Amino acid sequence: MNYNEESLRLHEEKQGKITLALTVPIHTKQDLSIAYTPGIAAVSKHVAQHPEALRTHTFVGRSVGVISNGTAVLGLGNIGAAGAYPVMEGKAALFKRFGNVDALPVVLEETDPEKLVELIEALAINYSGINLEDIRAPDCFYIEEELKKKLSIPVFHDDQHGTAVVVSAALKNSLRLLGKQLSEIKIVLSGAGSAGIAIAKLLRAQGAKKLYVLDSKGLITQKREVNTYKKAFAVDEPAQTLQEVIVGADVFIGVSQPHILRKEDVEKMKEPIIFALSNPVAEIEPEEARAGGAKIIATGRSDHPNQINNLLVFPGLFRGLLDANITDISQELLIEIADALANYQEANAEAIIPSALDEKVHEVVAQTVREYQSK
Amino acid sequence: MNYNEESLRLHEEKQGKITLALTVPIHTKQDLSIAYTPGIAAVSKHVAQHPEALRTHTFVGRSVGVISNGTAVLGLGNIGAAGAYPVMEGKAALFKRFGNVDALPVVLEETDPEKLVELIEALAINYSGINLEDIRAPDCFYIEEELKKKLSIPVFHDDQHGTAVVVSAALKNSLRLLGKQLSEIKIVLSGAGSAGIAIAKLLRAQGAKKLYVLDSKGLITQKREVNTYKKAFAVDEPAQTLQEVIVGADVFIGVSQPHILRKEDVEKMKEPIIFALSNPVAEIEPEEARAGGAKIIATGRSDHPNQINNLLVFPGLFRGLLDANITDISQELLIEIADALANYQEANAEAIIPSALDEKVHEVVAQTVREYQSK
Repeated sequence: MNYNEESLRLHEEKQGKITLALTVPIHTKQDLSIAYTPGIAAVSKHVAQHPEALRTHTFVGRSVGVISNGTAVLGLGNIGAAGAYPVMEGKAALFKRFGNVDALPVVLEETDPEKLVELIEALAINYSGINLEDIRAPDCFYIEEELKKKLSIPVFHDDQHGTAVVVSAALKNSLRLLGKQLSEIKIVLSGAGSAGIAIAKLLRAQGAKKLYVLDSKGLITQKREVNTYKKAFAVDEPAQTLQEVIVGADVFIGVSQPHILRKEDVEKMKEPIIFALSNPVAEIEPEEARAGGAKIIATGRSDHPNQINNLLVFPGLFRGLLDANITDISQELLIEIADALANYQEANAEAIIPSALDEKVHEVVAQTVREYQSK
Repeated sequence: MNYNEESLRLHEEKQGKITLALTVPIHTKQDLSIAYTPGIAAVSKHVAQHPEALRTHTFVGRSVGVISNGTAVLGLGNIGAAGAYPVMEGKAALFKRFGNVDALPVVLEETDPEKLVELIEALAINYSGINLEDIRAPDCFYIEEELKKKLSIPVFHDDQHGTAVVVSAALKNSLRLLGKQLSEIKIVLSGAGSAGIAIAKLLRAQGAKKLYVLDSKGLITQKREVNTYKKAFAVDEPAQTLQEVIVGADVFIGVSQPHILRKEDVEKMKEPIIFALSNPVAEIEPEEARAGGAKIIATGRSDHPNQINNLLVFPGLFRGLLDANITDISQELLIEIADALANYQEANAEAIIPSALDEKVHEVVAQTVREYQSK
């Protein structure tokens, strides 16, 4: 099947993937008097006096805004707000399907980070959580930080943290299978955009020490002038290229560009773990990585084993946040989710991470989040 | 039944009145590849190149924003954005129920008209139409005018035009029953807020000549200093009070305050037509109006005959606008809808207007709108 053609056809036939439905019947005068005037006045008065009742008495309590400005859409780049909309709508459909969360796609034609923060702040009253999506780095870091400071609802940039959680879970199981320790291994991380920086942060928070992060210009070292987000991972090393730094590494994580890792690079690693997550074309084809001696291989693709799929996180995460009224998504919570995903099933080299189509996994994530609060 | 208590209870039980649903199945890897990545990239590219495809290929084509800043909510006044939310959500439920329009409640904590216009402008890409609601006069006039100028989607302030259309329809049938002509009768209109001004405009556009508009300070005359919206209806008259101007009137329309019209006022009218629309307490109780000699009485209440109910207009209107891709809601279109509502059924004094719970009436409105374009 040609997914592109079929997707276009289906979107036109169905006019998108989501629609509204009613939770209450509206057939009689009495129904109208309860759902709308005059009864609704009592709800409005109650909410005006107790704004927290927006959460308990209205659609706001079910709603998450899936918000983008379209500056970094999938592998398509800065295609703008309109182009981002189908992806936000897709995300909303997945939120509903796997987390029973009523997520609403929202795109904003605003590339200035401060103005985008202001706009989202003005909208926030309508949601119980915000999932930022497809906003370019480094803007996305500033925008998320500011919103977390200003808003009293959870804010989550999925491209960063969703990826970081699933990578953490997959890496935990990979290391377990090979009998290695996170604190001792050498990790080479290619890509210092939203996903790369978040992965580096989350791995470091879990004890990773030998972390080498590269951007499109090479290894991030202390001599280079880079933004503060990258600077936090600068190393004091003479090496500059991926080919230099890969020597002796245990793990390669790529969230960067197609085909930048070669078989001969993999051959220089130690019991190589290769997460080649660039999508749809990976940093190295799985067959080539295997030929180079890779012990465990993961990609971003659904047609290979070990798909690193953000879908494992966001539906259950927000289900749990809404259920337990948690407003802060801390690194500790993200680590708990990664652990829960890693421990979900007996892992093997072809199954280091659950499938996102496994219905139960989302409830496990949600339960992990709900229990986190009570600790 | 106590509607207030029942409405509060139901809203808490159901967590509001609307929820999301999927239009497509998401069960298999193939489903995911079509609804989301990689297939969605084709839809995103298509929309980025042809932004009008947001209408045909996404939820935007089904969506209407029901937007308020909560400055004039029902009879509750300026209770703020949070308090307005349950009403917007109720409206969204009615949009779905009677027009199959996917309307989304949006409240904004912004009372400055210019800033509110900017915010709504930034959001407009997500909708195929905007229904403004419960925004105080005269701000609502400016906001609607500006948005109509700036946006390429239909903008409708229901408190103004919905009310005006239903009043027009009801008045047409009332005059028909009494054998009177709109151009010859004396109309006294109490209330110069959003509904009052819109009613005055629409009646004048249909040929009403003797129109006397009063605000809370009395008759709007050329000697008074009033805003430009009121000024358009100023008359050159010595009379100042409702009691003075009601003498000899054929029609009283109240969109103002409870109990300002008395039996002895009605007695001074000619074959009185009384539309006492203040809600929940009317300008005059129907029994008192009848005792004063009223021939036809309408109210805003569902427990009396002849309910002037905006619900007769907005679901069918937006259904028709979306179906026919109409972006301008002109006075002519509103008059066509009023005529369609008036002609919908054989009228009598107890049924000058259809019931909004009549399923077919919404389709008649939608069809009127769709046909309007092709004229």
